Amino acid sequence: MPKGADRVIMQEYSAREGDTVRFAEGYGPGWHVRAAGSDFSAGDLLLDVGTRLGSRTIVTAAAADQAMLKVCLRPKVAIIGTGDELAPPGEAHLRADAVPESVTFGIAAMVQHAGAEVIARIIGDDSLPALERLAGEMLDKADVVIVTGGASVGERDFAKPMFVSHGLELLFSKVAMKPGKPVWLGRAKGKWVLGLPGNPTSAMVTACLFLRALLAGLQGQSITQVLQWRELPLACQMPATGGRETFVRARWGADGLRPLGNQDSGVQLALAQADWLIRSAPNSPGLDAGDTVTALEF
Amino acid sequence: MPKGADRVIMQEYSAREGDTVRFAEGYGPGWHVRAAGSDFSAGDLLLDVGTRLGSRTIVTAAAADQAMLKVCLRPKVAIIGTGDELAPPGEAHLRADAVPESVTFGIAAMVQHAGAEVIARIIGDDSLPALERLAGEMLDKADVVIVTGGASVGERDFAKPMFVSHGLELLFSKVAMKPGKPVWLGRAKGKWVLGLPGNPTSAMVTACLFLRALLAGLQGQSITQVLQWRELPLACQMPATGGRETFVRARWGADGLRPLGNQDSGVQLALAQADWLIRSAPNSPGLDAGDTVTALEF
Repeated sequence: MPKGADRVIMQEYSAREGDTVRFAEGYGPGWHVRAAGSDFSAGDLLLDVGTRLGSRTIVTAAAADQAMLKVCLRPKVAIIGTGDELAPPGEAHLRADAVPESVTFGIAAMVQHAGAEVIARIIGDDSLPALERLAGEMLDKADVVIVTGGASVGERDFAKPMFVSHGLELLFSKVAMKPGKPVWLGRAKGKWVLGLPGNPTSAMVTACLFLRALLAGLQGQSITQVLQWRELPLACQMPATGGRETFVRARWGADGLRPLGNQDSGVQLALAQADWLIRSAPNSPGLDAGDTVTALEF
Repeated sequence: MPKGADRVIMQEYSAREGDTVRFAEGYGPGWHVRAAGSDFSAGDLLLDVGTRLGSRTIVTAAAADQAMLKVCLRPKVAIIGTGDELAPPGEAHLRADAVPESVTFGIAAMVQHAGAEVIARIIGDDSLPALERLAGEMLDKADVVIVTGGASVGERDFAKPMFVSHGLELLFSKVAMKPGKPVWLGRAKGKWVLGLPGNPTSAMVTACLFLRALLAGLQGQSITQVLQWRELPLACQMPATGGRETFVRARWGADGLRPLGNQDSGVQLALAQADWLIRSAPNSPGLDAGDTVTALEF
Protein backbone atom coordinates (compact mmCIF):
# COMPACT_ATOMS: atom_id res chain seq x y z
CA MET A 1 0.00 0.00 0.00
CA PRO A 2 1.30 3.50 -0.78
CA LYS A 3 1.90 5.61 2.36
CA GLY A 4 -1.29 7.24 3.60
CA ALA A 5 -3.67 4.92 1.72
CA ASP A 6 -6.01 2.73 3.75
CA ARG A 7 -8.32 1.17 1.14
CA VAL A 8 -8.37 0.05 -2.53
CA ILE A 9 -11.24 0.91 -4.85
CA MET A 10 -11.55 -0.61 -8.32
CA GLN A 11 -11.09 1.82 -11.19
CA GLU A 12 -14.56 0.81 -12.41
CA TYR A 13 -16.07 2.41 -9.28
CA SER A 14 -14.33 5.77 -9.61
CA ALA A 15 -14.71 8.69 -11.99
CA ARG A 16 -12.34 11.52 -12.82
CA GLU A 17 -13.74 15.01 -12.53
CA GLY A 18 -11.08 17.45 -13.63
CA ASP A 19 -8.32 17.32 -11.04
CA THR A 20 -10.36 15.34 -8.53
CA VAL A 21 -11.64 11.78 -8.41
CA ARG A 22 -15.07 10.67 -7.22
CA PHE A 23 -15.56 7.21 -5.69
CA ALA A 24 -18.71 5.15 -5.40
CA GLU A 25 -20.09 4.85 -1.89
CA GLY A 26 -19.54 1.92 0.44
CA TYR A 27 -15.78 1.39 0.24
CA GLY A 28 -14.64 1.94 3.82
CA PRO A 29 -11.18 1.61 5.37
CA GLY A 30 -9.51 -1.74 4.73
CA TRP A 31 -11.52 -2.41 1.58
CA HIS A 32 -9.60 -4.77 -0.78
CA VAL A 33 -6.59 -4.64 1.55
CA ARG A 34 -5.06 -7.93 2.62
CA ALA A 35 -3.38 -7.63 6.00
CA ALA A 36 0.18 -8.93 6.18
CA GLY A 37 0.06 -12.57 7.32
CA SER A 38 -3.60 -13.05 6.39
CA ASP A 39 -2.63 -15.90 4.06
CA PHE A 40 0.38 -17.27 5.97
CA SER A 41 3.10 -15.93 8.27
CA ALA A 42 6.81 -16.50 8.77
CA GLY A 43 7.28 -19.85 10.51
CA ASP A 44 4.06 -21.43 9.21
CA LEU A 45 4.33 -24.93 7.79
CA LEU A 46 3.16 -24.66 4.17
CA LEU A 47 4.17 -27.99 2.65
CA ASP A 48 4.71 -30.94 4.94
CA VAL A 49 7.56 -33.41 4.42
CA GLY A 50 6.50 -35.89 1.78
CA THR A 51 4.21 -33.48 -0.06
CA ARG A 52 4.33 -34.07 -3.78
CA LEU A 53 5.05 -30.97 -5.84
CA GLY A 54 2.19 -30.58 -8.28
CA SER A 55 0.29 -27.74 -9.89
CA ARG A 56 -1.22 -26.47 -6.62
CA THR A 57 1.62 -27.07 -4.18
CA ILE A 58 4.23 -25.46 -6.43
CA VAL A 59 2.14 -22.27 -6.40
CA THR A 60 2.19 -22.25 -2.61
CA ALA A 61 5.96 -22.75 -2.58
CA ALA A 62 6.54 -19.93 -5.07
CA ALA A 63 4.11 -17.68 -3.16
CA ALA A 64 6.38 -18.06 -0.13
CA ASP A 65 9.21 -16.53 -2.21
CA GLN A 66 11.12 -19.81 -2.20
CA ALA A 67 13.47 -20.23 -5.18
CA MET A 68 14.90 -23.53 -3.97
CA LEU A 69 13.12 -26.47 -2.39
CA LYS A 70 14.66 -29.48 -0.74
CA VAL A 71 13.44 -32.50 -2.65
CA CYS A 72 14.19 -36.19 -2.59
CA LEU A 73 16.37 -38.03 -5.10
CA ARG A 74 14.25 -40.22 -7.35
CA PRO A 75 14.67 -43.87 -6.32
CA LYS A 76 16.21 -45.92 -9.14
CA VAL A 77 14.14 -48.92 -10.07
CA ALA A 78 15.03 -51.91 -12.25
CA ILE A 79 12.25 -54.16 -13.54
CA ILE A 80 12.94 -57.76 -14.57
CA GLY A 81 10.25 -59.87 -16.20
CA THR A 82 10.61 -63.65 -16.10
CA GLY A 83 8.85 -66.45 -17.95
CA ASP A 84 9.76 -68.11 -21.24
CA GLU A 85 6.13 -67.88 -22.37
CA LEU A 86 6.53 -64.08 -22.69
CA ALA A 87 6.96 -62.37 -26.04
CA PRO A 88 7.26 -58.63 -26.65
CA PRO A 89 3.95 -56.99 -27.62
CA GLY A 90 3.48 -57.39 -31.36
CA GLU A 91 5.37 -60.71 -31.47
CA ALA A 92 3.24 -63.04 -29.37
CA HIS A 93 1.03 -64.00 -32.32
CA LEU A 94 4.12 -65.35 -34.11
CA ARG A 95 4.51 -68.19 -31.56
CA ALA A 96 1.83 -70.72 -30.62
CA ASP A 97 2.99 -70.96 -26.99
CA ALA A 98 3.56 -67.26 -26.25
CA VAL A 99 1.60 -64.56 -24.49
CA PRO A 100 2.40 -60.84 -24.86
CA GLU A 101 4.48 -59.50 -22.01
CA SER A 102 2.44 -56.68 -20.50
CA VAL A 103 3.19 -56.40 -16.80
CA THR A 104 6.59 -54.69 -16.95
CA PHE A 105 5.10 -51.84 -19.02
CA GLY A 106 2.43 -51.20 -16.43
CA ILE A 107 4.90 -51.42 -13.56
CA ALA A 108 7.27 -49.00 -15.33
CA ALA A 109 4.45 -46.47 -15.77
CA MET A 110 3.49 -46.85 -12.11
CA VAL A 111 7.12 -46.34 -10.99
CA GLN A 112 7.37 -43.12 -13.02
CA HIS A 113 4.01 -41.90 -11.79
CA ALA A 114 5.20 -42.49 -8.22
CA GLY A 115 8.14 -40.13 -8.81
CA ALA A 116 10.83 -42.77 -9.21
CA GLU A 117 13.09 -43.49 -12.18
CA VAL A 118 13.04 -46.66 -14.27
CA ILE A 119 16.68 -47.46 -15.01
CA ALA A 120 16.00 -50.80 -16.72
CA ARG A 121 13.07 -52.87 -17.97
CA ILE A 122 14.34 -56.25 -19.07
CA ILE A 123 12.82 -59.63 -19.83
CA GLY A 124 15.34 -62.11 -18.44
CA ASP A 125 16.49 -65.29 -20.19
CA ASP A 126 14.88 -68.26 -18.57
CA SER A 127 18.03 -69.82 -17.09
CA LEU A 128 19.20 -69.48 -13.51
CA PRO A 129 22.84 -68.49 -14.27
CA ALA A 130 21.73 -65.74 -16.68
CA LEU A 131 19.14 -64.45 -14.23
CA GLU A 132 21.68 -64.52 -11.36
CA ARG A 133 24.06 -62.36 -13.41
CA LEU A 134 21.25 -59.99 -14.34
CA ALA A 135 20.11 -59.76 -10.70
CA GLY A 136 23.66 -58.88 -9.58
CA GLU A 137 24.01 -56.21 -12.24
CA MET A 138 20.67 -54.62 -11.32
CA LEU A 139 21.36 -54.77 -7.56
CA ASP A 140 24.54 -52.77 -8.23
CA LYS A 141 22.69 -50.00 -10.06
CA ALA A 142 19.21 -49.78 -8.57
CA ASP A 143 17.65 -48.95 -5.22
CA VAL A 144 14.78 -51.31 -5.90
CA VAL A 145 14.78 -54.40 -8.13
CA ILE A 146 11.35 -55.68 -9.12
CA VAL A 147 10.95 -59.15 -10.53
CA THR A 148 7.66 -60.31 -12.00
CA GLY A 149 6.49 -63.91 -12.22
CA GLY A 150 8.49 -67.02 -11.42
CA ALA A 151 7.21 -67.20 -7.85
CA SER A 152 5.61 -70.66 -8.02
CA VAL A 153 7.30 -73.92 -7.06
CA GLY A 154 8.06 -75.14 -10.59
CA GLU A 155 11.55 -76.13 -11.68
CA ARG A 156 11.88 -72.97 -13.73
CA ASP A 157 10.53 -70.48 -11.25
CA PHE A 158 13.67 -68.48 -10.62
CA ALA A 159 12.41 -65.22 -9.13
CA LYS A 160 13.71 -65.91 -5.62
CA PRO A 161 16.58 -68.32 -6.53
CA MET A 162 18.19 -65.71 -8.80
CA PHE A 163 18.80 -63.49 -5.74
CA VAL A 164 19.95 -66.23 -3.33
CA SER A 165 23.64 -66.04 -4.26
CA HIS A 166 23.36 -62.26 -3.72
CA GLY A 167 22.38 -62.84 -0.10
CA LEU A 168 18.58 -62.55 -0.39
CA GLU A 169 16.88 -62.14 2.98
CA LEU A 170 13.12 -62.46 2.73
CA LEU A 171 10.94 -60.09 4.75
CA PHE A 172 7.78 -61.86 3.66
CA SER A 173 7.18 -64.44 0.99
CA LYS A 174 3.39 -64.67 0.64
CA VAL A 175 0.43 -62.53 1.68
CA ALA A 176 -3.08 -63.74 2.56
CA MET A 177 -4.72 -61.60 -0.09
CA LYS A 178 -6.63 -62.09 -3.33
CA PRO A 179 -5.41 -61.44 -5.94
CA GLY A 180 -1.68 -61.32 -5.25
CA LYS A 181 -0.92 -64.14 -2.80
CA PRO A 182 2.60 -64.84 -4.22
CA VAL A 183 3.91 -61.27 -3.64
CA TRP A 184 7.19 -61.23 -1.71
CA LEU A 185 9.71 -58.67 -0.43
CA GLY A 186 13.36 -59.06 0.46
CA ARG A 187 16.72 -57.37 0.80
CA ALA A 188 19.89 -58.24 -1.12
CA LYS A 189 23.20 -56.34 -1.29
CA GLY A 190 21.54 -53.58 0.75
CA LYS A 191 18.84 -53.04 -1.88
CA TRP A 192 15.12 -53.81 -1.93
CA VAL A 193 13.85 -56.73 -3.97
CA LEU A 194 10.12 -56.94 -4.65
CA GLY A 195 8.64 -60.03 -6.26
CA LEU A 196 5.33 -59.54 -8.03
CA PRO A 197 3.01 -62.30 -9.27
CA GLY A 198 3.07 -63.10 -12.97
CA ASN A 199 -0.68 -62.67 -13.43
CA PRO A 200 -1.15 -59.12 -14.72
CA THR A 201 -3.99 -58.15 -12.41
CA SER A 202 -2.26 -59.71 -9.39
CA ALA A 203 0.93 -57.85 -10.30
CA MET A 204 -0.80 -54.48 -10.68
CA VAL A 205 -2.85 -54.85 -7.48
CA THR A 206 0.17 -55.83 -5.38
CA ALA A 207 2.25 -53.08 -7.00
CA CYS A 208 -0.48 -50.55 -6.19
CA LEU A 209 -0.27 -51.56 -2.53
CA PHE A 210 3.32 -52.63 -1.88
CA LEU A 211 5.41 -50.92 -4.55
CA ARG A 212 3.76 -47.54 -4.03
CA ALA A 213 4.24 -47.90 -0.27
CA LEU A 214 7.91 -48.83 -0.75
CA LEU A 215 8.60 -45.93 -3.13
CA ALA A 216 6.77 -43.58 -0.75
CA GLY A 217 9.05 -44.61 2.10
CA LEU A 218 12.15 -44.15 -0.04
CA GLN A 219 10.97 -40.61 -0.86
CA GLY A 220 10.25 -39.52 2.70
CA GLN A 221 6.50 -39.91 2.31
CA SER A 222 4.21 -41.61 4.76
CA ILE A 223 2.04 -44.45 3.47
CA THR A 224 -1.09 -42.41 4.23
CA GLN A 225 0.15 -39.59 1.98
CA VAL A 226 0.22 -42.04 -0.92
CA LEU A 227 -2.37 -44.73 -0.20
CA GLN A 228 -5.49 -42.74 0.59
CA TRP A 229 -8.29 -45.13 1.51
CA ARG A 230 -11.73 -43.59 1.01
CA GLU A 231 -15.26 -44.45 2.08
CA LEU A 232 -17.48 -44.64 -1.01
CA PRO A 233 -20.92 -46.08 -1.77
CA LEU A 234 -21.48 -49.16 -3.91
CA ALA A 235 -23.49 -48.55 -7.09
CA CYS A 236 -24.67 -52.18 -7.16
CA GLN A 237 -24.47 -55.42 -5.22
CA MET A 238 -21.09 -56.93 -4.39
CA PRO A 239 -20.87 -60.69 -3.72
CA ALA A 240 -19.48 -62.17 -0.49
CA THR A 241 -15.71 -62.68 -0.49
CA GLY A 242 -13.75 -65.80 0.46
CA GLY A 243 -11.18 -66.62 3.10
CA ARG A 244 -8.52 -64.13 1.94
CA GLU A 245 -8.60 -60.34 2.18
CA THR A 246 -9.85 -59.36 -1.27
CA PHE A 247 -9.16 -56.33 -3.45
CA VAL A 248 -12.11 -56.04 -5.78
CA ARG A 249 -11.52 -54.15 -9.03
CA ALA A 250 -14.20 -51.53 -9.49
CA ARG A 251 -15.09 -48.50 -11.55
CA TRP A 252 -16.23 -45.20 -10.04
CA GLY A 253 -19.25 -43.72 -11.77
CA ALA A 254 -21.84 -41.07 -10.99
CA ASP A 255 -23.74 -43.47 -8.69
CA GLY A 256 -20.76 -44.92 -6.82
CA LEU A 257 -18.34 -47.83 -7.17
CA ARG A 258 -19.31 -50.69 -9.45
CA PRO A 259 -17.32 -53.94 -9.08
CA LEU A 260 -16.34 -55.26 -12.50
CA GLY A 261 -18.01 -58.44 -13.67
CA ASN A 262 -14.86 -60.43 -14.37
CA GLN A 263 -12.68 -60.62 -11.23
CA ASP A 264 -10.38 -63.36 -12.63
CA SER A 265 -6.82 -62.31 -11.84
CA GLY A 266 -5.70 -63.11 -15.37
CA VAL A 267 -7.97 -60.68 -17.19
CA GLN A 268 -6.39 -57.61 -18.69
CA LEU A 269 -9.29 -55.82 -20.35
CA ALA A 270 -10.71 -55.16 -16.88
CA LEU A 271 -7.48 -53.38 -15.93
CA ALA A 272 -8.30 -50.62 -18.37
CA GLN A 273 -11.66 -50.14 -16.67
CA ALA A 274 -10.87 -50.66 -12.98
CA ASP A 275 -9.92 -47.29 -11.52
CA TRP A 276 -10.54 -48.21 -7.85
CA LEU A 277 -9.82 -51.18 -5.58
CA ILE A 278 -12.41 -52.10 -2.95
CA ARG A 279 -10.88 -53.67 0.16
CA SER A 280 -12.95 -56.50 1.55
CA ALA A 281 -12.03 -58.32 4.78
CA PRO A 282 -11.82 -62.15 4.71
CA ASN A 283 -15.25 -63.83 4.67
CA SER A 284 -17.16 -60.58 4.16
CA PRO A 285 -20.89 -60.99 3.47
CA GLY A 286 -22.43 -59.74 0.24
CA LEU A 287 -23.23 -56.02 0.16
CA ASP A 288 -26.02 -54.02 -1.43
CA ALA A 289 -26.09 -50.90 -3.59
CA GLY A 290 -25.69 -47.87 -1.34
CA ASP A 291 -23.58 -49.72 1.26
CA THR A 292 -20.30 -48.00 2.05
CA VAL A 293 -17.01 -49.68 1.21
CA THR A 294 -13.36 -48.76 1.75
CA ALA A 295 -11.51 -48.17 -1.50
CA LEU A 296 -8.25 -46.93 -2.99
CA GLU A 297 -7.58 -45.26 -6.32
CA PHE A 298 -5.98 -47.93 -8.55
CA MET B 1 -2.68 -76.20 -23.87
CA PRO B 2 -0.68 -79.21 -25.06
CA LYS B 3 -2.68 -81.51 -27.37
CA GLY B 4 -4.83 -83.96 -25.43
CA ALA B 5 -4.79 -81.97 -22.17
CA ASP B 6 -8.09 -80.64 -20.82
CA ARG B 7 -7.21 -79.26 -17.37
CA VAL B 8 -4.31 -77.73 -15.41
CA ILE B 9 -3.42 -78.89 -11.91
CA MET B 10 -0.89 -77.04 -9.76
CA GLN B 11 2.33 -78.95 -9.08
CA GLU B 12 1.59 -78.56 -5.35
CA TYR B 13 -1.47 -80.81 -5.77
CA SER B 14 0.34 -83.65 -7.53
CA ALA B 15 2.85 -86.27 -6.42
CA ARG B 16 5.25 -88.41 -8.41
CA GLU B 17 5.12 -92.13 -7.75
CA GLY B 18 7.79 -93.80 -9.86
CA ASP B 19 6.77 -93.39 -13.47
CA THR B 20 3.25 -92.22 -12.68
CA VAL B 21 1.81 -89.07 -11.19
CA ARG B 22 -1.03 -88.89 -8.66
CA PHE B 23 -3.32 -85.84 -8.55
CA ALA B 24 -5.43 -84.52 -5.70
CA GLU B 25 -9.16 -84.97 -6.21
CA GLY B 26 -11.53 -82.31 -7.43
CA TYR B 27 -9.78 -80.97 -10.53
CA GLY B 28 -12.20 -81.76 -13.32
CA PRO B 29 -12.05 -80.89 -17.02
CA GLY B 30 -11.44 -77.20 -17.73
CA TRP B 31 -9.79 -76.58 -14.37
CA HIS B 32 -7.41 -73.57 -14.59
CA VAL B 33 -8.03 -73.35 -18.33
CA ARG B 34 -8.96 -69.98 -19.76
CA ALA B 35 -11.04 -70.32 -22.89
CA ALA B 36 -9.87 -68.33 -25.89
CA GLY B 37 -11.70 -65.00 -25.86
CA SER B 38 -12.67 -65.19 -22.18
CA ASP B 39 -10.84 -61.92 -21.53
CA PHE B 40 -11.43 -60.20 -24.88
CA SER B 41 -11.87 -61.19 -28.52
CA ALA B 42 -10.77 -59.90 -31.89
CA GLY B 43 -12.79 -56.77 -32.70
CA ASP B 44 -13.47 -55.79 -29.08
CA LEU B 45 -12.89 -52.15 -28.17
CA LEU B 46 -10.24 -52.20 -25.43
CA LEU B 47 -9.19 -48.55 -25.13
CA ASP B 48 -11.57 -45.88 -26.34
CA VAL B 49 -10.38 -42.80 -28.22
CA GLY B 50 -9.14 -40.30 -25.67
CA THR B 51 -8.05 -42.90 -23.12
CA ARG B 52 -4.92 -41.81 -21.33
CA LEU B 53 -2.11 -44.38 -21.37
CA GLY B 54 -1.22 -45.06 -17.77
CA SER B 55 -0.08 -48.01 -15.71
CA ARG B 56 -3.30 -49.99 -16.17
CA THR B 57 -4.26 -49.10 -19.72
CA ILE B 58 -0.77 -49.80 -21.10
CA VAL B 59 -1.05 -53.34 -19.71
CA THR B 60 -4.29 -53.84 -21.61
CA ALA B 61 -2.72 -52.54 -24.83
CA ALA B 62 0.31 -54.82 -24.47
CA ALA B 63 -1.92 -57.78 -23.60
CA ALA B 64 -3.61 -57.30 -26.97
CA ASP B 65 -0.20 -57.88 -28.61
CA GLN B 66 -0.06 -54.31 -29.85
CA ALA B 67 3.47 -53.01 -30.37
CA MET B 68 2.37 -49.65 -31.76
CA LEU B 69 -0.45 -47.40 -30.60
CA LYS B 70 -1.83 -44.36 -32.34
CA VAL B 71 -1.41 -41.46 -29.95
CA CYS B 72 -1.95 -37.73 -30.15
CA LEU B 73 0.80 -35.15 -30.57
CA ARG B 74 1.29 -33.21 -27.36
CA PRO B 75 -0.21 -29.71 -27.75
CA LYS B 76 2.47 -27.02 -27.44
CA VAL B 77 1.67 -24.45 -24.80
CA ALA B 78 3.29 -21.08 -24.11
CA ILE B 79 2.64 -19.36 -20.78
CA ILE B 80 3.05 -15.60 -20.40
CA GLY B 81 2.80 -13.94 -17.01
CA THR B 82 2.03 -10.21 -16.87
CA GLY B 83 2.23 -7.66 -14.08
CA ASP B 84 5.12 -5.42 -13.04
CA GLU B 85 4.49 -6.32 -9.38
CA LEU B 86 5.77 -9.83 -10.08
CA ALA B 87 9.26 -10.97 -9.05
CA PRO B 88 10.73 -14.44 -9.50
CA PRO B 89 10.43 -16.62 -6.38
CA GLY B 90 13.36 -15.85 -4.09
CA GLU B 91 13.59 -12.22 -5.25
CA ALA B 92 10.29 -10.71 -4.12
CA HIS B 93 11.63 -9.89 -0.64
CA LEU B 94 14.28 -7.67 -2.27
CA ARG B 95 11.64 -5.18 -3.49
CA ALA B 96 9.07 -3.43 -1.29
CA ASP B 97 6.40 -3.43 -4.03
CA ALA B 98 6.83 -6.96 -5.37
CA VAL B 99 5.00 -10.24 -4.88
CA PRO B 100 6.49 -13.58 -5.89
CA GLU B 101 5.26 -14.80 -9.25
CA SER B 102 3.66 -18.17 -8.58
CA VAL B 103 0.87 -18.77 -11.07
CA THR B 104 2.91 -19.65 -14.16
CA PHE B 105 4.66 -22.44 -12.24
CA GLY B 106 1.35 -24.00 -11.28
CA ILE B 107 -0.05 -23.63 -14.79
CA ALA B 108 3.07 -25.20 -16.28
CA ALA B 109 2.74 -28.20 -13.96
CA MET B 110 -0.94 -28.54 -14.88
CA VAL B 111 -0.15 -28.38 -18.62
CA GLN B 112 2.42 -31.16 -18.28
CA HIS B 113 0.11 -33.24 -16.13
CA ALA B 114 -2.57 -32.88 -18.83
CA GLY B 115 -0.21 -34.44 -21.38
CA ALA B 116 0.78 -31.23 -23.17
CA GLU B 117 4.20 -29.65 -23.58
CA VAL B 118 5.29 -26.32 -22.07
CA ILE B 119 7.40 -24.67 -24.77
CA ALA B 120 7.84 -21.35 -22.92
CA ARG B 121 7.12 -19.85 -19.50
CA ILE B 122 7.90 -16.15 -19.63
CA ILE B 123 7.13 -13.11 -17.50
CA GLY B 124 6.53 -10.33 -20.03
CA ASP B 125 7.86 -6.80 -19.74
CA ASP B 126 5.08 -4.47 -18.75
CA SER B 127 4.87 -2.48 -21.97
CA LEU B 128 2.40 -3.01 -24.78
CA PRO B 129 4.91 -3.07 -27.69
CA ALA B 130 7.11 -5.64 -25.90
CA LEU B 131 4.10 -7.80 -25.03
CA GLU B 132 2.77 -7.54 -28.61
CA ARG B 133 6.09 -8.82 -29.95
CA LEU B 134 6.13 -11.63 -27.39
CA ALA B 135 2.53 -12.58 -28.21
CA GLY B 136 3.37 -12.80 -31.92
CA GLU B 137 6.41 -14.94 -31.30
CA MET B 138 4.45 -17.33 -29.07
CA LEU B 139 1.49 -17.53 -31.48
CA ASP B 140 3.95 -18.67 -34.16
CA LYS B 141 5.30 -21.52 -32.03
CA ALA B 142 2.49 -22.70 -29.77
CA ASP B 143 -0.92 -24.29 -30.20
CA VAL B 144 -2.18 -22.54 -27.06
CA VAL B 145 -0.94 -19.27 -25.58
CA ILE B 146 -1.92 -18.67 -21.97
CA VAL B 147 -1.65 -15.20 -20.48
CA THR B 148 -2.12 -14.64 -16.77
CA GLY B 149 -3.25 -11.38 -15.16
CA GLY B 150 -3.73 -8.04 -16.87
CA ALA B 151 -7.43 -8.62 -17.48
CA SER B 152 -8.75 -5.59 -15.56
CA VAL B 153 -9.50 -2.21 -17.08
CA GLY B 154 -6.36 -0.43 -15.83
CA GLU B 155 -4.08 1.49 -18.20
CA ARG B 156 -1.48 -1.23 -17.91
CA ASP B 157 -3.69 -4.28 -18.27
CA PHE B 158 -2.37 -5.59 -21.55
CA ALA B 159 -3.52 -9.22 -21.60
CA LYS B 160 -6.11 -8.70 -24.33
CA PRO B 161 -4.55 -5.63 -26.06
CA MET B 162 -1.29 -7.49 -26.70
CA PHE B 163 -3.17 -9.91 -29.00
CA VAL B 164 -5.33 -7.33 -30.81
CA SER B 165 -2.81 -6.57 -33.57
CA HIS B 166 -2.56 -10.35 -34.10
CA GLY B 167 -6.27 -10.49 -34.92
CA LEU B 168 -7.68 -11.56 -31.56
CA GLU B 169 -11.28 -12.78 -31.78
CA LEU B 170 -12.85 -13.28 -28.37
CA LEU B 171 -15.05 -16.31 -27.79
CA PHE B 172 -15.95 -15.15 -24.29
CA SER B 173 -14.47 -12.43 -22.15
CA LYS B 174 -15.95 -13.02 -18.67
CA VAL B 175 -17.70 -15.87 -16.90
CA ALA B 176 -20.32 -15.59 -14.13
CA MET B 177 -18.29 -17.67 -11.70
CA LYS B 178 -16.47 -17.19 -8.43
CA PRO B 179 -13.53 -17.22 -8.29
CA GLY B 180 -12.40 -16.58 -11.85
CA LYS B 181 -14.81 -14.03 -13.34
CA PRO B 182 -12.12 -12.39 -15.59
CA VAL B 183 -11.25 -15.63 -17.47
CA TRP B 184 -11.43 -15.21 -21.25
CA LEU B 185 -10.83 -17.27 -24.37
CA GLY B 186 -10.01 -16.21 -27.91
CA ARG B 187 -8.41 -17.14 -31.20
CA ALA B 188 -5.51 -15.36 -32.88
CA LYS B 189 -3.44 -16.45 -35.91
CA GLY B 190 -5.34 -19.74 -35.83
CA LYS B 191 -4.18 -20.52 -32.29
CA TRP B 192 -6.00 -20.58 -28.96
CA VAL B 193 -5.46 -17.77 -26.49
CA LEU B 194 -6.61 -18.31 -22.93
CA GLY B 195 -6.57 -15.43 -20.45
CA LEU B 196 -6.44 -16.42 -16.78
CA PRO B 197 -7.03 -14.10 -13.82
CA GLY B 198 -3.99 -12.81 -11.96
CA ASN B 199 -5.18 -14.00 -8.56
CA PRO B 200 -3.49 -17.37 -7.99
CA THR B 201 -6.56 -19.23 -6.79
CA SER B 202 -8.72 -17.75 -9.56
CA ALA B 203 -6.08 -18.72 -12.11
CA MET B 204 -5.81 -22.29 -10.87
CA VAL B 205 -9.57 -22.82 -10.60
CA THR B 206 -10.24 -21.48 -14.10
CA ALA B 207 -7.28 -23.46 -15.48
CA CYS B 208 -8.66 -26.61 -13.85
CA LEU B 209 -11.95 -26.07 -15.67
CA PHE B 210 -11.13 -24.32 -18.96
CA LEU B 211 -7.49 -25.18 -19.68
CA ARG B 212 -7.95 -28.87 -18.94
CA ALA B 213 -11.05 -28.91 -21.15
CA LEU B 214 -9.18 -27.13 -23.96
CA LEU B 215 -6.17 -29.48 -23.79
CA ALA B 216 -8.54 -32.46 -23.67
CA GLY B 217 -10.19 -31.33 -26.88
CA LEU B 218 -6.82 -30.82 -28.58
CA GLN B 219 -5.88 -34.39 -27.64
CA GLY B 220 -9.05 -36.07 -28.89
CA GLN B 221 -10.48 -36.49 -25.42
CA SER B 222 -14.01 -35.65 -24.40
CA ILE B 223 -14.52 -33.24 -21.53
CA THR B 224 -16.14 -36.00 -19.46
CA GLN B 225 -13.02 -38.14 -19.80
CA VAL B 226 -11.03 -35.38 -18.14
CA LEU B 227 -13.43 -33.45 -15.90
CA GLN B 228 -15.07 -36.17 -13.85
CA TRP B 229 -17.67 -34.60 -11.58
CA ARG B 230 -18.45 -36.77 -8.56
CA GLU B 231 -21.17 -36.87 -5.93
CA LEU B 232 -19.55 -36.78 -2.49
CA PRO B 233 -20.78 -36.05 1.04
CA LEU B 234 -19.87 -32.92 2.97
CA ALA B 235 -17.90 -33.53 6.18
CA CYS B 236 -19.16 -30.27 7.70
CA GLN B 237 -21.47 -27.35 7.01
CA MET B 238 -20.99 -25.25 3.90
CA PRO B 239 -22.28 -21.65 3.87
CA ALA B 240 -24.76 -20.34 1.30
CA THR B 241 -23.19 -19.01 -1.90
CA GLY B 242 -23.81 -15.69 -3.65
CA GLY B 243 -25.10 -14.70 -7.04
CA ARG B 244 -22.34 -16.32 -9.09
CA GLU B 245 -21.74 -20.05 -9.63
CA THR B 246 -19.10 -20.81 -7.00
CA PHE B 247 -16.26 -23.30 -6.93
CA VAL B 248 -15.50 -23.94 -3.28
CA ARG B 249 -12.02 -25.21 -2.46
CA ALA B 250 -12.25 -28.28 -0.27
CA ARG B 251 -10.22 -31.13 1.10
CA TRP B 252 -11.31 -34.76 0.91
CA GLY B 253 -10.86 -36.65 4.17
CA ALA B 254 -12.13 -39.87 5.66
CA ASP B 255 -15.51 -38.28 6.50
CA GLY B 256 -16.08 -36.46 3.21
CA LEU B 257 -15.33 -33.08 1.67
CA ARG B 258 -14.44 -30.24 4.00
CA PRO B 259 -14.56 -26.68 2.52
CA LEU B 260 -11.45 -24.76 3.53
CA GLY B 261 -11.91 -21.90 5.96
CA ASN B 262 -10.30 -19.20 3.84
CA GLN B 263 -12.07 -18.91 0.46
CA ASP B 264 -10.44 -15.58 -0.48
CA SER B 265 -9.28 -15.91 -4.09
CA GLY B 266 -5.89 -14.44 -3.21
CA VAL B 267 -4.80 -17.04 -0.68
CA GLN B 268 -2.12 -19.45 -1.73
CA LEU B 269 -1.61 -21.61 1.36
CA ALA B 270 -5.10 -23.03 0.81
CA LEU B 271 -4.06 -24.14 -2.69
CA ALA B 272 -1.71 -26.69 -1.15
CA GLN B 273 -4.60 -28.12 0.85
CA ALA B 274 -7.55 -27.93 -1.56
CA ASP B 275 -7.64 -31.17 -3.53
CA TRP B 276 -11.29 -30.89 -4.66
CA LEU B 277 -13.57 -28.16 -6.00
CA ILE B 278 -17.22 -28.18 -4.93
CA ARG B 279 -19.57 -26.74 -7.56
CA SER B 280 -22.32 -24.64 -6.08
CA ALA B 281 -25.10 -23.11 -8.20
CA PRO B 282 -25.81 -19.35 -7.85
CA ASN B 283 -27.69 -18.47 -4.65
CA SER B 284 -27.39 -21.96 -3.19
CA PRO B 285 -28.58 -22.29 0.43
CA GLY B 286 -26.21 -23.44 3.17
CA LEU B 287 -25.69 -27.20 3.41
CA ASP B 288 -25.13 -29.55 6.35
CA ALA B 289 -22.62 -32.29 7.04
CA GLY B 290 -23.70 -35.42 5.20
CA ASP B 291 -25.40 -33.52 2.37
CA THR B 292 -24.22 -34.55 -1.09
CA VAL B 293 -22.36 -32.09 -3.31
CA THR B 294 -20.97 -32.24 -6.83
CA ALA B 295 -17.19 -31.98 -6.91
CA LEU B 296 -14.17 -32.26 -9.18
CA GLU B 297 -10.60 -33.29 -8.36
CA PHE B 298 -8.55 -30.06 -8.33
